[in-house]
Amino acid sequence: MFNHTKVLQYPARPDKPDALFAKKMQEILGGQFGEITVALQYLFQGWSARGEEKYKDLIMDTATEEIGHVEMIATMIARLLDGAPIKEQEEAAKDPVIGAILGGMNPQHAIVSGLGPRPTDSNGVPWNAGYIIASGNLLADIRANINAESQGRLQVARLYEMTEDQGVRDMLSFLLARDSMHQNQWIAAARELEEKNGVIVPGSFPRELEADNFSHSLINFSEGEDSKEGSWANGTAPDGGQFNYEQTPTAHGEKQELQPAPEYMYPK
Amino acid sequence: MFNHTKVLQYPARPDKPDALFAKKMQEILGGQFGEITVALQYLFQGWSARGEEKYKDLIMDTATEEIGHVEMIATMIARLLDGAPIKEQEEAAKDPVIGAILGGMNPQHAIVSGLGPRPTDSNGVPWNAGYIIASGNLLADIRANINAESQGRLQVARLYEMTEDQGVRDMLSFLLARDSMHQNQWIAAARELEEKNGVIVPGSFPRELEADNFSHSLINFSEGEDSKEGSWANGTAPDGGQFNYEQTPTAHGEKQELQPAPEYMYPK
Amino acid sequence: MFNHTKVLQYPARPDKPDALFAKKMQEILGGQFGEITVALQYLFQGWSARGEEKYKDLIMDTATEEIGHVEMIATMIARLLDGAPIKEQEEAAKDPVIGAILGGMNPQHAIVSGLGPRPTDSNGVPWNAGYIIASGNLLADIRANINAESQGRLQVARLYEMTEDQGVRDMLSFLLARDSMHQNQWIAAARELEEKNGVIVPGSFPRELEADNFSHSLINFSEGEDSKEGSWANGTAPDGGQFNYEQTPTAHGEKQELQPAPEYMYPK
Amino acid sequence: MFNHTKVLQYPARPDKPDALFAKKMQEILGGQFGEITVALQYLFQGWSARGEEKYKDLIMDTATEEIGHVEMIATMIARLLDGAPIKEQEEAAKDPVIGAILGGMNPQHAIVSGLGPRPTDSNGVPWNAGYIIASGNLLADIRANINAESQGRLQVARLYEMTEDQGVRDMLSFLLARDSMHQNQWIAAARELEEKNGVIVPGSFPRELEADNFSHSLINFSEGEDSKEGSWANGTAPDGGQFNYEQTPTAHGEKQELQPAPEYMYPK
Amino acid sequence: MFNHTKVLQYPARPDKPDALFAKKMQEILGGQFGEITVALQYLFQGWSARGEEKYKDLIMDTATEEIGHVEMIATMIARLLDGAPIKEQEEAAKDPVIGAILGGMNPQHAIVSGLGPRPTDSNGVPWNAGYIIASGNLLADIRANINAESQGRLQVARLYEMTEDQGVRDMLSFLLARDSMHQNQWIAAARELEEKNGVIVPGSFPRELEADNFSHSLINFSEGEDSKEGSWANGTAPDGGQFNYEQTPTAHGEKQELQPAPEYMYPK
Amino acid sequence: MFNHTKVLQYPARPDKPDALFAKKMQEILGGQFGEITVALQYLFQGWSARGEEKYKDLIMDTATEEIGHVEMIATMIARLLDGAPIKEQEEAAKDPVIGAILGGMNPQHAIVSGLGPRPTDSNGVPWNAGYIIASGNLLADIRANINAESQGRLQVARLYEMTEDQGVRDMLSFLLARDSMHQNQWIAAARELEEKNGVIVPGSFPRELEADNFSHSLINFSEGEDSKEGSWANGTAPDGGQFNYEQTPTAHGEKQELQPAPEYMYPK
Repeated sequence: MFNHTKVLQYPARPDKPDALFAKKMQEILGGQFGEITVALQYLFQGWSARGEEKYKDLIMDTATEEIGHVEMIATMIARLLDGAPIKEQEEAAKDPVIGAILGGMNPQHAIVSGLGPRPTDSNGVPWNAGYIIASGNLLADIRANINAESQGRLQVARLYEMTEDQGVRDMLSFLLARDSMHQNQWIAAARELEEKNGVIVPGSFPRELEADNFSHSLINFSEGEDSKEGSWANGTAPDGGQFNYEQTPTAHGEKQELQPAPEYMYPK
Repeated sequence: MFNHTKVLQYPARPDKPDALFAKKMQEILGGQFGEITVALQYLFQGWSARGEEKYKDLIMDTATEEIGHVEMIATMIARLLDGAPIKEQEEAAKDPVIGAILGGMNPQHAIVSGLGPRPTDSNGVPWNAGYIIASGNLLADIRANINAESQGRLQVARLYEMTEDQGVRDMLSFLLARDSMHQNQWIAAARELEEKNGVIVPGSFPRELEADNFSHSLINFSEGEDSKEGSWANGTAPDGGQFNYEQTPTAHGEKQELQPAPEYMYPK
Repeated sequence: MFNHTKVLQYPARPDKPDALFAKKMQEILGGQFGEITVALQYLFQGWSARGEEKYKDLIMDTATEEIGHVEMIATMIARLLDGAPIKEQEEAAKDPVIGAILGGMNPQHAIVSGLGPRPTDSNGVPWNAGYIIASGNLLADIRANINAESQGRLQVARLYEMTEDQGVRDMLSFLLARDSMHQNQWIAAARELEEKNGVIVPGSFPRELEADNFSHSLINFSEGEDSKEGSWANGTAPDGGQFNYEQTPTAHGEKQELQPAPEYMYPK
Repeated sequence: MFNHTKVLQYPARPDKPDALFAKKMQEILGGQFGEITVALQYLFQGWSARGEEKYKDLIMDTATEEIGHVEMIATMIARLLDGAPIKEQEEAAKDPVIGAILGGMNPQHAIVSGLGPRPTDSNGVPWNAGYIIASGNLLADIRANINAESQGRLQVARLYEMTEDQGVRDMLSFLLARDSMHQNQWIAAARELEEKNGVIVPGSFPRELEADNFSHSLINFSEGEDSKEGSWANGTAPDGGQFNYEQTPTAHGEKQELQPAPEYMYPK
Repeated sequence: MFNHTKVLQYPARPDKPDALFAKKMQEILGGQFGEITVALQYLFQGWSARGEEKYKDLIMDTATEEIGHVEMIATMIARLLDGAPIKEQEEAAKDPVIGAILGGMNPQHAIVSGLGPRPTDSNGVPWNAGYIIASGNLLADIRANINAESQGRLQVARLYEMTEDQGVRDMLSFLLARDSMHQNQWIAAARELEEKNGVIVPGSFPRELEADNFSHSLINFSEGEDSKEGSWANGTAPDGGQFNYEQTPTAHGEKQELQPAPEYMYPK
Repeated sequence: MFNHTKVLQYPARPDKPDALFAKKMQEILGGQFGEITVALQYLFQGWSARGEEKYKDLIMDTATEEIGHVEMIATMIARLLDGAPIKEQEEAAKDPVIGAILGGMNPQHAIVSGLGPRPTDSNGVPWNAGYIIASGNLLADIRANINAESQGRLQVARLYEMTEDQGVRDMLSFLLARDSMHQNQWIAAARELEEKNGVIVPGSFPRELEADNFSHSLINFSEGEDSKEGSWANGTAPDGGQFNYEQTPTAHGEKQELQPAPEYMYPK
C-alpha cells in the first residue's frame, strides 16, 4: 500500500518554456530506460521476490523512490510546455525560431495532452511493459538493474549537455546523483550474490549438465583477430575456467533441412 | 558482409514431435531475451562501435554466432511441429492427450506458418526492437549484455527442466554452455573497462556536476528497515564513496502544482 | 454488408498545402481517439450487441457514419500534402520556412505513402486495436463512447485553434458538430440505461456479494484534504448510498510476502 | 513523492494453487482496463491537473490507492502459481487435469517470471501506455475514468463468476466495492462539472463555430429504423437542442478524388 | 460515404458452439492477413489513389466488400462462443473435453468481450496498422494485394482443414471463392500495369541511375550451389536483362569502421 | 551458421553530415520494408522451407545478402550523424539552418544511441516482427517477396530524390540495382511455380470445395461503374475461369443478429 506526499522529492522548475526540450525529456520519462521503466521494473521485482527480506526491502525502497522520479519529470515537462506557442500563424512561420519550435515540437503535447507530459518516449512511442525485467532470479535481476541505471544515467548526462537551462540542469544533477547511488547499490548487491552463488546465472543449474567444452571458447565468427588479445580469450575466466580462442568456427551439427510438409498444410 | 554455411553450429533434433514444447521454446527465439534479441543487439552495438577495435571485434564475433543460434532454435521448433495433430476430430477431442495439445498449441504454428517457427515469444507476441540496447557507451552496453546472457541462460535452464526429450536437452546443454561463455566474456570485458573508467556509467561525466550529497544514500521509502543492514547502506561504495542510510525520506522540492491552463487548450 | 458512395459526407478541401498540419491532423485519423478508433469500436460493439434492437441500430448507424469520417480526414491529409516540398536543396535549407517544413514534416508522408494519409497518429505510431472497447455490456460501452466523443471533440477543437486555413476549419466545424451530436446521443442512451439498471456497471451483479463497507468511502491516500470537501465525500452517492471520508488509510491485509521459490525455477 | 507500507490494503490469499486462473487474472493486472492502466492514468491526470485543487487531490487519492491494487493482484497471481506443475512428464501428460494445466497455463509464468506476475494481459500481451488517457480537460478525463471503472468492475464480476476459490472471491469482492466507489465518485464529479460547463466537451469551444445544423441529427446510415424510436432521435437533447432524425443520409461534399501524383513520388 | 445493410453477404452460422475454434478463427479477423487488414489496406489505397479512375473504383469495390467480410467473421466468432462453458468447476476440470476447452480458449472472449469477437489475432495480439500497405505506387500496391489474398486464402484453407463443422466450412468455402476472385483480379490488374510500365517497380525511375552491373546477378552468399540452376540465375530476366551467377561474393566497400565518438556523447 | 567479413558489400560514405537525412534513412533500415524486414523474412522462409532445395538455397542466398545491407545502411546513418550539432545554444537557435536540424532530427540519435543507427523507422517506431511473412507456402511467400522488393525499391527511389549528397546517392544506386535483381529473381521463381501449381494460392486446395459461383465475379460495392471496363471484369481470368460483373451486390446471408447474452456474462 502506498501514500503520496504532494511536495516533490527535488525541485523541478525550468527557467523558461522550451517545447523542444520538453519533447526530448520524454525519453527519460517514457522511453526504454525512462523512469516508468525502473519504477515498474523494481515494483514487479519486489512483489515477486521470494528470497531474503533485505533484498526485497532494498528493491521496494528504490521502486517507491522511482515513482517520485516519474512525478518530477512529468512536472518538469508540463512546466516546459507552459507558454509554448502552438498556433501556425503567418508571422510565426516566418520567424525561424518559432517556426522551428512549431515544426519540431511533439504535436501530441498540444493536441492530446493539452500541455501535459505523455507516457511515451522522445519520438512519441508509447511506453510498453516489454521493457521491464523481473525474472525471479535475484542476481539476474540485479544485473538488469545495473544496466538500467547505467543507460538511464547516460541519457541524463546527454540531456544535461543538450540544454543550458539552469533549472532543468539542477534537476538533472539530482537525477545523476541518484543514478550514481543506484548503480552503487546494485553493484554492491551483485557482488554479495556472486560471492555466494558464483558469477554464472543461474548458479544453481548443475554445470555438468551443460556442454562444458563450449563454456570458455571465444569463437572467431567475424574476420580479423583483434578480439583474440582480450582478457576474454586468454587466462582465467570469471567463473574459474580457462578461456581459449577458436580461430576457425566449426559446425558441429547437421544440415539445416526439414521433412517435406504434409499436404494438409497446403505447401503448394 | 556475411556468409552462410548450411550445417548447423550444433545438432537440433528432437526425439519426437511436441507441439506444446514448440510453443514454449518460442520464448528463447522471439521473446525479450530470445536469440533474435541478442543477435540484433550485438549487431547494432558492433556497427555503432566507435572505440577500440578489440571490443568491436568481440562484439561482432558474438553477434555473428547468435544469428546461427536463431537458426538452431528455428530448426528445432520446426522439427517439434513435424507430425503434430491439428484437426479437431470427434475422436481427438475425446482423447485427453490430443485434446490438450489441440487446445494448448500455438494456433499460428498451424494457420500462419504451416509448421514453421514464428518470430514471436511463447505467447505469440511479435518480437520488437524495443527489446534491444545499443547506446554508444561501451560499458553500459556490456552491462546490458551481461544481463541479456543471464536472463537468457536462466530461461534455457527452466526449459531444460520442463522437457524430458533428450534431443531437445542436448541442444539446450549447448546453449547453456555458450551462455556461460558469453557471461564470462562480458564480465571480463566489463572489469577491464571499470578499471579504466570507474564503475559509474558514464565515467566521463564530471562527478562535481551531480548533486553529490545524494550519490551514496539509501533512502528508506518502504516501511521496515531490513535494507539497512545490507552492504549498500554502510561502508565503502563501489565508486569509493561512503554509503549512508536515510531513515526518513525528505522532500526537498516544492508542491507539485502547475499554472492554470491557457484557454486555447480548452481545459473546460 | 456495406455500400460506398464516392461523394464525401462533407467537403474536405484545404485552401493551400501544409505538410506540417497534415502531420498534426494524423492524430484524429489514426490516434487513440482518431476516427479509425470510433469506426472500429462502434462496429465491434454493433456486431457483438446481443440486446434490444434499437441500441444495436443506433450503434451501427454511427459506426457506418464514422467510416465516412475516416474517408474525409484521409482525403484532407492527402490534399494538404499536394505540392509539399520534399527535396533537401541547398537553397531550401537556407529558407527558414521551407527548412522548418522539411525538418518538421512526417517523413513517411513522402517516403512511404507518396503524399497519402498514413494509418498512424501525429507522431507516426501505427493505430492499434488496443484502443477500442467492446465489452458486451451496453452501459459500459456507451460510457466508453461518451468518453471517445469527448476526447475526440477536444482534439478537433485544439486543431481548429492551430490552423488558420479556412478550408480546413470548415471541415473541422462539421466534425465538431457531429461530435456534439454523438455526445448528445450517447448521453441520452446512457441515461435510459442508468434508469433501468442503476448507475453502477454491471447492474446485474448482486451488490450483497461485494464488500460493501468499502463501496462509498473516499480514502485519503494523497496528503492534504482538499478532496474531502467534494460532492464525492459527503452526502448521497449516485447509487443511493452515503459517501464517507476516511482520513487515514487502513491496511486490512497481511504482509506482502511470498513462499520461497522452488529449486526448479532456479531462483539462484 | 511516495511511501510504501508492506501490509496489503486487503488480503490476497487463494485457497489453493491454480495456474489457469493466474493466467486469467492477468487481465485485471496488465490488460486494457487492468490496475496498471488506472494507476498510471490517474497519476498522469493528477500530475497534469491545472485547475481546482479539490479535483487534483481526488485524482491523486485514487491514483495512489490503485498502485496498491496493482500490488494486491500481483501478489494473488504469484500465490496462485505457488506449487503449479510445470514439467511435461510422461505421467502428467496422461492425467487430463494436469495435462490441461500444462497446455493452458501462460508459459511465461514459468519460463520468464519464475512463478511471478507478468505486466501483461491474460493473453500475454505487454501492457502499453496507449491505454491511458490524460487530456488536460477535466470533464473529458473524468468520463474516461467512469468508463475505466465500469469496464474494470465488469471484468472483475466475470472473473468472480469463473472461479470458486473463496480466497480469490474474497479479494474480488473488495475490488468490486472499490470499483463501485470509484464509479460513484467520478459520476458525482462529472455531474458537478456538467452543471458548470455544460454536457458537451469541451464546454468552452464557442458553439457558433461548429456547423450546428449537424449537431442534433441522428442519421440513418444502417438500414432499418429501429434507432428512430430512441430518446436520441426525438425531443430535447442533453445540451438543450432538439434531436431530429435524418432518414436518408445526404452527401454534402464533393467526389473523393485527388490530383495526379507528382513524378518525383514515383507513382508508376 | 458508406451505407450498411443488416443482412450478411453470406450466411455465418456454425452447427454448434466451439470456443477453441472461435479462438483460431480470430486469425482471419484480426491477424496480419485477417479481414481487418485487407479492408483497411484497400480503403487507404483507394483514398490515396491519384491515377486512373478504373483502378480506384476497383480498389474501392473490393475495400467495401471486405468490411462486410469482417462483419461475417465477427458474427461467426460470436456464434461459436454462444453457450461455451466458462466456469472452472470441480467437475468440469475432471472432464477432459471441458477441461481442454477451459484451458485452451481465449480468456478475453469471456472476460473482456463477453462472448464477442476481439480485434486481435489467434493469440490475442491486437491488430495494428503496421500490417497495411498503401504506397501511392499502383503496381507496388497491387502486388501487396496479390500477396495479401494469397496468404489469406492459405489461412482459410488451413482453417477449413481444422474443423468439421459444416456451417463453418460453408462460410469458409465462400471466403475461399472470394479470395480466388481477388487473386484473379489483382493478377489481371498487375499484368496490365506491367505491360505499360515494365516489371520493375517503380517503372519511372531511370534505370541508368542504378548501379546496373548489379541488377541481374544472383550472388552465392549461402554455401552450396543449388540456386545456380534456377531460372533466376540464367537466361533472360523478366525485365529483359541477362541473369548471371556470382559464385563467390565480392566485398566492394571499405571496412565497417566509424570515427571516434565526440566527448559530449559520453562514450566512456 | 554464419561468418562475417568486416568489409562492406558496397561503400557507405556520405559527403557530409546530415542529421535530418539520417532520420529519414531510418525508414529503409527499420521500417515496414526496411532491410531488417527482408533479412529476417527471408531467413524465416529459408529455415522453414520444406520443399525443393534450389528454392531454399535461393532464399538463403538472398537472406544472407540482406544482413549485409542492414550493415551498410546502419553504417551510413552513423556517418551521417558524425559531427551533427546537438546543443540548444542561444546562437544555434537563432541560426535557422541549425535550428531546423535541432528541431527536426531524431532526438534518440543523440540521447539513446549516441550517434548510432536505431532499429526503428523514420518516425522512431521500433521495428517489429509483425512485418515479416513466412507461411510455409512457397508461392505465397515469393509473392510477399516481390511485394517487399517493390515497396523497398520505391522507398529508395524516393530517398534518392530527397538528397543531393553524392555519397549517399552512390549507395542508394547500388540498393536500387539489388532491388531490381531481387524483383527479377522472385518474379522468375513465381512464374515457375505458377506454371506448376496454377496461379491461385494454395494450388492444392480442391477448387470444387470453394463456393465457385463466387470465384470470378467483380461485385460493384462502390458507386460508379468505372471498374466494369477493366480486364478483371470481362474475359478470361488468370486461373482460366470467366470474369463477370455483378452490378448490384446481393446479400446472400441472414440478418446479423445474435442470441441474448447469458446472465453470467453480465450484459446489464
